[in-house]
Amino acid sequence: MSNPQSVGFVEPTLYSFTEPIKLACGLTLPSYDLMVETYGTLNADKSNAVLVCHALNASHHVAGEYQGQERSTGWWDNMVGPGKPLDTNRFFVVGVNNLGSCFGSTGPMSINPATGQPYGASFPFVTVEDWVEAQARLADRLGIAQFAAVMGGSLGGMQALQWGLSYPDRVRHCLVIASTPKLSTQNIAFNEVARQSIVSDPDFHGGNYYAHGVIPKSGLKLARMIGHITYLSGDDMSEKFGRTLKGDDYNYGLDVDFQVESYLRYQGEKFAEYFDANTYILITKALDYFDPARHTGGDLKLALAKAKAKFLLVSFTTDWRFAPERTREIVEALMANKRDVTYAEIDAPHGHDAFLLTDERYHAVVGSYFERIAAELTAELKPIQVEVSA
Amino acid sequence: MSNPQSVGFVEPTLYSFTEPIKLACGLTLPSYDLMVETYGTLNADKSNAVLVCHALNASHHVAGEYQGQERSTGWWDNMVGPGKPLDTNRFFVVGVNNLGSCFGSTGPMSINPATGQPYGASFPFVTVEDWVEAQARLADRLGIAQFAAVMGGSLGGMQALQWGLSYPDRVRHCLVIASTPKLSTQNIAFNEVARQSIVSDPDFHGGNYYAHGVIPKSGLKLARMIGHITYLSGDDMSEKFGRTLKGDDYNYGLDVDFQVESYLRYQGEKFAEYFDANTYILITKALDYFDPARHTGGDLKLALAKAKAKFLLVSFTTDWRFAPERTREIVEALMANKRDVTYAEIDAPHGHDAFLLTDERYHAVVGSYFERIAAELTAELKPIQVEVSA
Repeated sequence: MSNPQSVGFVEPTLYSFTEPIKLACGLTLPSYDLMVETYGTLNADKSNAVLVCHALNASHHVAGEYQGQERSTGWWDNMVGPGKPLDTNRFFVVGVNNLGSCFGSTGPMSINPATGQPYGASFPFVTVEDWVEAQARLADRLGIAQFAAVMGGSLGGMQALQWGLSYPDRVRHCLVIASTPKLSTQNIAFNEVARQSIVSDPDFHGGNYYAHGVIPKSGLKLARMIGHITYLSGDDMSEKFGRTLKGDDYNYGLDVDFQVESYLRYQGEKFAEYFDANTYILITKALDYFDPARHTGGDLKLALAKAKAKFLLVSFTTDWRFAPERTREIVEALMANKRDVTYAEIDAPHGHDAFLLTDERYHAVVGSYFERIAAELTAELKPIQVEVSA
Repeated sequence: MSNPQSVGFVEPTLYSFTEPIKLACGLTLPSYDLMVETYGTLNADKSNAVLVCHALNASHHVAGEYQGQERSTGWWDNMVGPGKPLDTNRFFVVGVNNLGSCFGSTGPMSINPATGQPYGASFPFVTVEDWVEAQARLADRLGIAQFAAVMGGSLGGMQALQWGLSYPDRVRHCLVIASTPKLSTQNIAFNEVARQSIVSDPDFHGGNYYAHGVIPKSGLKLARMIGHITYLSGDDMSEKFGRTLKGDDYNYGLDVDFQVESYLRYQGEKFAEYFDANTYILITKALDYFDPARHTGGDLKLALAKAKAKFLLVSFTTDWRFAPERTREIVEALMANKRDVTYAEIDAPHGHDAFLLTDERYHAVVGSYFERIAAELTAELKPIQVEVSA
C-alpha cells in the first residue's frame, strides 16, 4: 500500500455475543455475531473512538483494502484514513456490519441455531434502534464508554441520530449526513416497489430461497435499479448519460437503446450477485420504520429533547431522496432544544449519492468538524464517565 | 343521463384501413383497425373538428359513458362535453385508440393476418409519428381536411406537437399539456425499470404469453406502481397518505404497513387486469423515442420551424415527471420561430396527474383558448384547403 492516505490492508474481526438481544419487533435473538473493522488506535482514556454506521448496501468495511483482493476498497475510504476528514491518525474508527445484513453479521443467511437451517424469512425485522443497541454492546466489548462521535450518511445518519436518543451520555457528537427524521410517503412508496419486485420473483420462495439453491436475482436487480434512480439527481443522470444511444440508431425492440438502460441493468445485475434479498427487504423496512417522533405525536422537538450530543448535519442541494428540507427539520428541532448544532447545505450535483463522493467543500466541513472534536480531546475535556456492563 | 354537461351514452366505431402503413421502424402493417369515438357534430365546412390524443393507458373513450356499464366514464370527461372547456356544443371531438394499444385498435393482442395468431412480441414498435400518420388517415376517412385543434396531455401532448410538424397545414391549433420535447434520462430510466419488470416476469414468455394462456401480471403490477409514483407529486402523496398505517402498529413483516403501500398494490393489480403488457412496452418505447430535435442536431428551434399552427401549452408546477422547464423549452423554441404561443403554468399540487384533474384555473385557460378558436370559426376564418386522398 503505497498510498499514505489509506489505512492500508485491513482485516475484519467477528465478535460473538451470547447475551440475548430483545428487538423492537418483540422477538429475541438468543445470540448473534457482528463483523467489525477498526482503524487507528484507541487512546489511553478511550476517548477518541468514532463509530461509522453504514446505509443500505454497505458494511463494516469502511476504509482500506483486503490484501490480495482487487477492488476491495472500503465504501467510505475517501472520508476515513490518515490525513482524511475523519483522520485515523487521531481517531479510532469502528465500522460494524449491522444485524440482519449479509456481510458476516448475523442475518437471514445465517444458520438459526434452533433449527440448523438458515433463518431465511424467519429472521426478525430489525430497526435502527435495534442496531444502535447492538452497536452499544459492541462498544461495551471494546471498552468504549463514550464515542467521540457517531457518524453516518442516509440510513447511517439515522443511526447517528438514534445514538443521541438511545444513549445520550455515550456519544459526544452525532454527524448526521444526507438523512431525514423519517421517510416521506414517496420514499416508502419506492421501497415498497423494490420489495414487491423481490417477493414477486418466483425464485424468492417466500424468503426461503436458500433451501431451493436459487436467489431471486431478477427481483433484486429491479429493486436496485429503482433505488439507483433515486440516489442520483435528474440533472446528474442527464449530464452522465443524456439520451446517448448504445448503438447508432433506435433498435425498435427490447434490446438496450439508451446507455442509461445499459448502465442500470448492469448495476442491477452486479448488485444481485452480492446482496441478499431478505436483507434488502429487512433494511428497507428499517428505513420505513425509523421515526423518532412517532411516540411524541409527531413532535420532533419533543422527540429530540433527550439528546445531549453536539450535532453536525449535512445535506446536499440536489438530493431529492432526502432533500435538505428534511435535514432542516432535524436542525430546527435540535435548535428549539437549544442544542449545539452545525449545519451545512452543500451545493453538489450528485443527488443523494453525494454523501459518498469526494466534494471539496463537503469534506472540508466534515474535516473541520473533526478538528474541533480533536481539539476538545486535546484540551482534555474528559468524557462523562458512564457505568458500562462490559 | 341526467347530467346536462355530459355527452351522454356513447358508442365506439371501428374503422378498418386496408392501405398498408409504413412505420418509423421500417416495418409495414398491411392493414389495421382504429377504434374511434366522436362527440358533437361536424359542421358543414368540417372546420370544427378537434382530435384528442391519449397518453399511456387511456383510449378513444374520452368522454361520456357506455350504457349499462357502471364506472365507464371517459378519461377526460371533465374536459370534454357540452359547456365544458372543450365544448361539444361547438366542436366535433374525435377520440382514437392508438395503433399498438389494447382497446380495440390493432395491437399486439390482435390477430396477425399472416399467421392467424396474435402478433404478440412481433407487433412492430410504433412511434408518435406513426400514430399521427394513422390519425391523419382517420381524418381523411372522416373528411376532415384540417383540425381546428389537436389536443393532448403527456404523451398525448407529444402527438399534438407532432401534428404541427407532420401536418403543418392540417392543424390550426396544437394544445400541448403537461408534456415535454423529449424524455429526460431519468424519465427513460423509470420506463426501463417498468419494462424490465414486465420482461423478467416468467409469465411474459418473451411477449407471447397469449399462447400460454397467462399474463405477466406481477410485472405489469410493478410497472404500474413505478409509473404511479412518478405521476404524483411528493407533497401530494404525503398529503393523501402521509405515514398513516393500515393497522394499529408496524407489523414487522411482509404485510402492508403503510396505507400508501396498500394503495399502490391495489392500483397495480387493477391495472394488470385490464392493460396489455406488450402494449405497455410499446408505448413506453414510443415515449422514449419521441425527440423532434433528434434530426436537427438537438436544435429544437430548427425542429419546430416547420410548425404553422398556433399553440397553447400548459404545465403544472408540481409535475416532476415533465416539469414546467420542459414545456418552456417548447415555448421558447416556438417563440424563437415567431409562432403564436400561449403558455400557462398552473400552480397545482397534483403532479403530472394534474392534467387529468379538475382545476378551475387550468380549465379556465383551456376553456378560453377554445373560445378563441370558436370565435375564429364564427368569424369564418376558413381553414386552408388541402388536397386529401380520402
